[in-house]
Amino acid sequence: MKKLIPNPPAKAKRDMPALLFDLDGTLTDSVYQHAFAWKDALEHVGVNIPLWTIHRQIGMSGGLLARKLLSLSGKRLTVQLIERVKKFHTKSFKGLEASVRLLPGAKELLAELSRLGVPWTIATSGSLVDVRSSLKLLGIDKSAPIVTRDSVEAAKPNPDLFLAAAEKLGVAIEDSIVVGDSIWDLLAARRAKTFGIGLLTGGYGREELEHAGAYRVYEDPKQMLDNLEDIGIS
Amino acid sequence: MKKLIPNPPAKAKRDMPALLFDLDGTLTDSVYQHAFAWKDALEHVGVNIPLWTIHRQIGMSGGLLARKLLSLSGKRLTVQLIERVKKFHTKSFKGLEASVRLLPGAKELLAELSRLGVPWTIATSGSLVDVRSSLKLLGIDKSAPIVTRDSVEAAKPNPDLFLAAAEKLGVAIEDSIVVGDSIWDLLAARRAKTFGIGLLTGGYGREELEHAGAYRVYEDPKQMLDNLEDIGIS
Repeated sequence: MKKLIPNPPAKAKRDMPALLFDLDGTLTDSVYQHAFAWKDALEHVGVNIPLWTIHRQIGMSGGLLARKLLSLSGKRLTVQLIERVKKFHTKSFKGLEASVRLLPGAKELLAELSRLGVPWTIATSGSLVDVRSSLKLLGIDKSAPIVTRDSVEAAKPNPDLFLAAAEKLGVAIEDSIVVGDSIWDLLAARRAKTFGIGLLTGGYGREELEHAGAYRVYEDPKQMLDNLEDIGIS
Repeated sequence: MKKLIPNPPAKAKRDMPALLFDLDGTLTDSVYQHAFAWKDALEHVGVNIPLWTIHRQIGMSGGLLARKLLSLSGKRLTVQLIERVKKFHTKSFKGLEASVRLLPGAKELLAELSRLGVPWTIATSGSLVDVRSSLKLLGIDKSAPIVTRDSVEAAKPNPDLFLAAAEKLGVAIEDSIVVGDSIWDLLAARRAKTFGIGLLTGGYGREELEHAGAYRVYEDPKQMLDNLEDIGIS
């Protein structure tokens, strides 16, 4: 049996920020698979959008993403069409899921935070059905206080997911730092009245993340783990 | 039968720069498929490199890319290993090729350049066997003065491909502008003693291309076509 990452501590140490992680592209190497799955889903309804354009929308809620990309194509938006594209995406992503790997240092970073007594959780725009295998890959305990798309009204870039995540940890959002790979994480962080750390693992450029307000940008979870002092964790 | 793009004029108009285009990610939407194909090829030899890292190497010669990514993994480099990975990549890419589409405005841009009497050609790090279907997609005449990996000693970021392309057009490299989606195109352009225009279609951020020396950055061939005056073509 795979060793599970210990859950974050129930009570935060004083003066230690909590960390709210995005999942896809931040802890698991799954952004490119999602881009392909959306490409496939859009082609199923006759819409041709270049992959780089799709790539730059990954991380926002699926409904918002489908709406935005369909409207770029000039297609008439209906609830049915958006639902069809979302369903195709879920199906197509399932076919690619076996190629998803952990990002370097992902497990080690979470385990070290637990060891240090730093509260952390995962707040993802994905539905539980879409992220279950990623959580398994990470060795996350079922009882860990994860927040998925299903439990909030609006996903990123709305702040709801991160607000719910902080609440679940019992910490103030102002004492939390968001960690994500996309500008949607960073926008949601700012809207939640906190700030974010960017990771290059989602395929954005460093400056794109900095311009979106990232306080620091690291290559991957491993480089972040090696520099925890930079964000006041030791 | 698909309408072919007219070949560039045999003799350039005075005071009109020639344009040397990259192919993958610049005219065809194929960068993400190449990233997956390299990922697949590397996993075949037991090497796990995150997709964003692979993505950022696309556009350099296959041999150089395989060498760099294998060495990142700490694996002992041998000529045999590099050749095996390259072969796996070609095979894996063939399986994804059917999903490659033209980028917005690609055909229209080349056709307009021909109409205006601007010499242009394509200089690609890909071998003829890898790019044949992309050229077909573009409707490029077999007699067009294309330069592929096969006809130079070293591909990008070496300047050879662009030097050979300018020579084939009968224009001086100093009177040529490179158009590409990756920092490897822009580096090769500078090493060839000319400069480049960046397109966002390969999935790099705008600033990454600017920092690599792009004189202008456009979203895609269509936006470049709409702004040809910016580079002195009218």
